[in-house]
Formats: sequence, C-alpha cells, structure tokens
Amino acid sequence: MNPLYEQMETSVFERMSLAAARHNAVNLGQGFPDFGWPDEILEAAAKAVTEGSNQYAPSRGLPVLREAVAAHYNRHHGLDLKAEHVCVTSGATEALAAAILAALSPGDEAIIFTPAYDAYAPLIRRAGASVREVALQPPEWKIDRDRLAAAVGPQTRAIIFNNPHNPTGRLFDADELESVASVAREHDLVVISDEVWEHILLDGQRFAPLASLPDMADRVIKCGSAGKIFSLTGWKIGWTVAAPEMATLAARAHQFLTFASAPNLQAAVAFGLNDGDAWIAPMRERFARARDRMTEGLRSAGYVVLDSAASYFLCVDLEASGIGLDDESFARLAVEQAGVAVVPLSAFAEQNPPTHMIRLCFAKRDETVEAGVAALAKAR
Amino acid sequence: MNPLYEQMETSVFERMSLAAARHNAVNLGQGFPDFGWPDEILEAAAKAVTEGSNQYAPSRGLPVLREAVAAHYNRHHGLDLKAEHVCVTSGATEALAAAILAALSPGDEAIIFTPAYDAYAPLIRRAGASVREVALQPPEWKIDRDRLAAAVGPQTRAIIFNNPHNPTGRLFDADELESVASVAREHDLVVISDEVWEHILLDGQRFAPLASLPDMADRVIKCGSAGKIFSLTGWKIGWTVAAPEMATLAARAHQFLTFASAPNLQAAVAFGLNDGDAWIAPMRERFARARDRMTEGLRSAGYVVLDSAASYFLCVDLEASGIGLDDESFARLAVEQAGVAVVPLSAFAEQNPPTHMIRLCFAKRDETVEAGVAALAKAR
Ligand SMILES: CSCCC(=O)C(=O)O
Ligand SMILES: CSCCC(=O)C(=O)O
Repeated sequence: MNPLYEQMETSVFERMSLAAARHNAVNLGQGFPDFGWPDEILEAAAKAVTEGSNQYAPSRGLPVLREAVAAHYNRHHGLDLKAEHVCVTSGATEALAAAILAALSPGDEAIIFTPAYDAYAPLIRRAGASVREVALQPPEWKIDRDRLAAAVGPQTRAIIFNNPHNPTGRLFDADELESVASVAREHDLVVISDEVWEHILLDGQRFAPLASLPDMADRVIKCGSAGKIFSLTGWKIGWTVAAPEMATLAARAHQFLTFASAPNLQAAVAFGLNDGDAWIAPMRERFARARDRMTEGLRSAGYVVLDSAASYFLCVDLEASGIGLDDESFARLAVEQAGVAVVPLSAFAEQNPPTHMIRLCFAKRDETVEAGVAALAKAR
Repeated sequence: MNPLYEQMETSVFERMSLAAARHNAVNLGQGFPDFGWPDEILEAAAKAVTEGSNQYAPSRGLPVLREAVAAHYNRHHGLDLKAEHVCVTSGATEALAAAILAALSPGDEAIIFTPAYDAYAPLIRRAGASVREVALQPPEWKIDRDRLAAAVGPQTRAIIFNNPHNPTGRLFDADELESVASVAREHDLVVISDEVWEHILLDGQRFAPLASLPDMADRVIKCGSAGKIFSLTGWKIGWTVAAPEMATLAARAHQFLTFASAPNLQAAVAFGLNDGDAWIAPMRERFARARDRMTEGLRSAGYVVLDSAASYFLCVDLEASGIGLDDESFARLAVEQAGVAVVPLSAFAEQNPPTHMIRLCFAKRDETVEAGVAALAKAR
C-alpha cells in the first residue's frame, strides 16, 4: 500500500465532526451552515429525482449547469465564459483533486499559503510533487510578494491559491492578487484558485476572480462550489473553470475520478443559478449577523477574536485570550468537556504551524451560535 | 500540465454517448438501463432531499448505509462484515480511484486483464505505477493461470480484477477465481476487485466475492456500485469493502478525492438495501429477457453474437459476421449513418487490442432493443 496514506491522518474537519457527534457537542468545527438554504432548490432536486433522468450525466456536467455556471460568472464579473470553460465535479474537493492531478507531475513543486485547507498538501504529494509552504503571518495574514517569490524554485510549477481564505476569513486585496499573478506570470506557473467562498463576503466588498487579472485567464484553474453558494454542502456539486485547453485536461482527470455527478442535483443547482441573484444579499447579511453575534459573544467571554471579512470562519487567539493550552489540547477539552467542537489551526500547516489559534464556523442559526459561545465561555 | 492527460482521450463511453446525442441515435454504447429502477427508492431520495440533511455526510458514508452494505453482503455470502469494512464513495469510479491511489506507489506494477474497463490503466499510471496487460482470448475469455503468473514481476504489487467481467459478460468460474487468488497469495499482491456487476447474473449462477476465498479477505479491496444494483447509474453512490486496515487507507484517499457523497442519495440507497432482496430475481429476469431479445434479433440479422452470462453487455464478432470494417470504423458508421451507438472493443486494451468486436448494452426496454437491432441490421 502507498506509504503516504499510511502516514496520513483523518481530515481534521471529519475528526472534529465525529467527536462532536460522539460527545453530543455543538459543532462549530467543520464548515457548514445549519440554516439558510433555498427551499425552491430542494424542491427542484426532489422533482428532478422523481421525474428526471437518474442515469449517467455527461462526464463534464449537464449542459444546462455548465451554461448556468458560465452565465453566473459572466453576470458578476463581466467575463465571457462559455460552457466549454466549465467541468462539473463531485464537489470542490474533486475539482481540486482533478486540477492538482492534471497540473502536476512527479518531481514538480507546488506552493501553498499556510494556514492552508488540509486537502492541498496530500493531493500535491499524491500527484508526485512536493509542497512548498509560504506562511501568512497573523493577525494580518498578508501575502508578501518577496516571500512568495523566494519560494519559487526551478521545479515550481503551480501555486494553490485560496481567496477568500479559509481559515483566516481574509479577502485578499488588489495588491496581494497582483503579487500572486505577477509571480505566476514571471515564472510561468499554473494557479489553482480555490474560490469556493467567493460569495460569502461580509462587509460589502467586491470579489475579483484571479483569472480576471491581466494575462491570467490562460493559467488559472478556478475551483467553485454549489454547496457553498447555496448552503447545501452535502450535495457535492462543484466545478472547475479554466481556459478550454486546461479545462479539457482537468475534465480528463475528472472522468477517471468520479466520471460524473448526480444529474438531479446538477439540474437543481442550474435552476438555482438561473433563478437570479436575489439570494446573495440576504445570505451575506445573515452570515454577517452570525459573525457579529459570535464575535461579540466571544469577546464578552474574554476571548480575543481576529477580524474575519469573508467565508464561514473566524479565528480566536488562545494565547492573547490568556489560555495556557495549545490549540489541539484546547480543542480536545472543548469538545470533550465543554461540549463544543472547534478546529485547531495547527492542522492547517506542517512547518511551524501556529499552535495558539482555533477556527470557529459562525454560519449557524442564533441558537447554535449562543450555545457554542456559552460552551466556549465554560471552556476557559 | 501533466503529460498523461495531454495524451489521454475522452472515455469511450462518454465519446459514444455524446455521439449518440449528436446523431439522435439509439444509445447501446455506455452501460446504463433505460428502465427498471425501483420507484420507492426515488421517493425515498426525494423525501430525504426535502426533509433530511443536505449538509456534509460523514466522509466514509452515512452509518446507516455502511451498515446496510455490510448486512447486504453478509446476507448474500455468509460473511461477517461490519460498517468499518465499508467506505462509501461517489460511485464505483471513485472507489477504483481511491483503491488504486491507496494501493500503488511510483515504480510499482499492476496487472489488468484485457479487455479492461477504460479507467484502470490511466488510474494506475497516474498513481505512478505501470500497467501490465494480461489478454483474455475470445470467444471463451478464460483466465489462464500460467499467463497471469508470467506477468508478475518483482515490481508487481496489485491485480485489478473485474468479475463479472465488462465487456465480455463472463462470470469467472471457481478455478479462474482460484488462479487469481493463488497468484495474489504467492506474490503477496493486493487485488482490487471491481464487482459492480455482482447481481446482474442472467443464468441462475451464484457469485462468489473474491474476498471470500481462503486467505483473501486481507488482500482484497472490493469496489461496489449502488447505481448498478438499483439501475440508478447517475447517482454515483459506490463503495469500497476491505479489511479494516485497508479500508482506512482507501478512506484516506477518498477523503481528498470527494470527501463525501450526497446524504440524501445515500439514505435512499440504504433504504433500498434494507428493503430486502425481492427486487433481485425480477431484475435478473428482466435483463436476461433483454439479452435474449437482443441476441436473437442480432442473430436473425446475420450477426455473430458471443455468449454473455452477466453484466449489461454482449459482444458481437464483426469479422465472423462477415463485416469488413474494423471496430472503430464500424462504430463510427453505426452511430453516424445507421443511428445506433455501440462501443468498439479496441478501447479496452492498448497492446494488440481485438479490433473486430463491438460491445452492446442490452439493459434496455423492448422498444429500445428493437430500435437498436433494426439500426444494426441496416449497418451491415
Ligand atoms: C469537506 S469538509 C471541510 C469543509 C470546509 O470547507 C471547512 O471546514 O474548512
Ligand atoms: C462511467 S460510464 C461507463 C459505464 C459502464 O460501466 C460501461 O459502459 O462500461
């Protein structure tokens, strides 16, 4: 058996959700909302299951969904995408897997910004490449062009970028985007841009896809997620968006990873995307209120909360909060004794990971936020 | 970008389905039924979508489904599987991908029997290993232990086995299973056993999972498919079944390929499996009748049809039928001019592939079979 998997651990998100279930704890660990999905989309899916086809979808996705994804981004960003740019995948994780397996070869190097989503490094390694970490520094978590450029070596072929950024809740600014883009241009790198949080912007900001920067359209593979867009994380409908030639390579990887995704869920996502964008503003308000409620509750309980401007997540600085435990120990205590699951930030890096921070998911109804904050108040 | 994908073609099944749609042809290419799924399962899925959770399932699958899969096999084969043996995947293709990525390392070799399902070789190569083909010879397609043993070299780590076998429709006999098992034992190989056709047995036979042979339980990763079991190929709910330690390694690969699969479709499959096995006998009869109808129709039209005892497929020998075209040319003519999509067998091997055979999917309602046969009668 492959030694990479013998050494690998269970994903921290799964580990924490299993612990939450075992201890009957409030689950603020894994990133999923417990409210707010559009009922019309559920009904569209139910109808498609009982009345539509339940046989294989085309491998790259239903044409209606590929067109809906392209139209959605064209509307938002004034792009000119077509169905051929889009490959529907079984969630954004499969989009990442297909993009990374298609982009990298044995001996290559790929850069990730830490703290980083926990799928990137194992996928890069399984692709035969090695991982080069570029650490963002709290509390600002800014991308420093010099540090990024210094990480590029002769074997570097790709940057895995994530914007808005999980777990820090940062939306990178125009200068930071240009830093990533200019390093990619200068060294002819592919950028796999995990943009699943693109619509979860909590302070009225505007999001620019990395591919919309000058001369980037041909080197970016974007990964997107219907689960994040419509608060239906279980559906596992995602996509890659790329220039046609790269889109085809990602689609070839995808055809032998899952081949295709459920046509009924695809049809319902297409319905949702084509139904207009009236859901976006209320969703942002809902999640911004939840963020504010959690931030205020935690601050009242004596926690030092870092600012979060996007995604479902905020970070807490345990050290600055006067907690004498490292993040893993605190997370264990929190779920086992205080009844709340959180995610230790050390799971997001291998080299000198921050060990004094935890991540919380605030995409929850008021009662859940209250219960989680109350449990965390007990945990200190 | 990775050169493997630059050289790779679109899967023959996808290619033929796209061609069928383009030419408005009867689709006897890709393997999916156009009738026969249980409506109760569709209703269970629709209900789970509107009333159940639409957030992440546990990565290894809903406990209720993992238990249902274990119980299903225990009932059929007198095994003693538990939920921990099972990892739910996004279809059997992902089960294969997870098993192959988990089992193989760069420099390894893996054996496949050709004609072989078209995902095996690309996945083995992307895992960093090389492919060793062992050709089965028509019209008997028997496994010859000596030829298999001769293909084992010092780097061989795995056999990808497929029983019942696509595209030949063979259920291998006890001697052939023992050949595979004994070679695996002797050389300490893992066997990835693609058993998705296990219930599609058309002549009253009994199926033995490879893992049920003596001393095989610890070296087999079985891949199974709800899509094949319930004629719902679009759902993409599959699973690996293996001894707990190997199951864990496959689950670690799976967690970074798709992470999890739609909970509502999983719940509906669990409902179907737990509902008892009354559907199996009528399904076999239905598909056996369809096979017989297609076989007789083709023979009346002058085609030489090979025997098929399992799966959705039968093969036609073009040469013996007096057709002077190779399989790819015939398939092109059939879909473009006669209005019927078929699959050329040369897509199932790289070394000396048979170029005088095509595969047809007979898992179709009477009208579809009739229309396909009529179109094929025109094609000669
Ligand atoms: C696929 S489980 C992880 C979900 C998520 O995006 C997160 O918790 O960071
Ligand atoms: C995943 S598409 C191929 C389906 C199938 O099993 C076949 O046609 O052989």
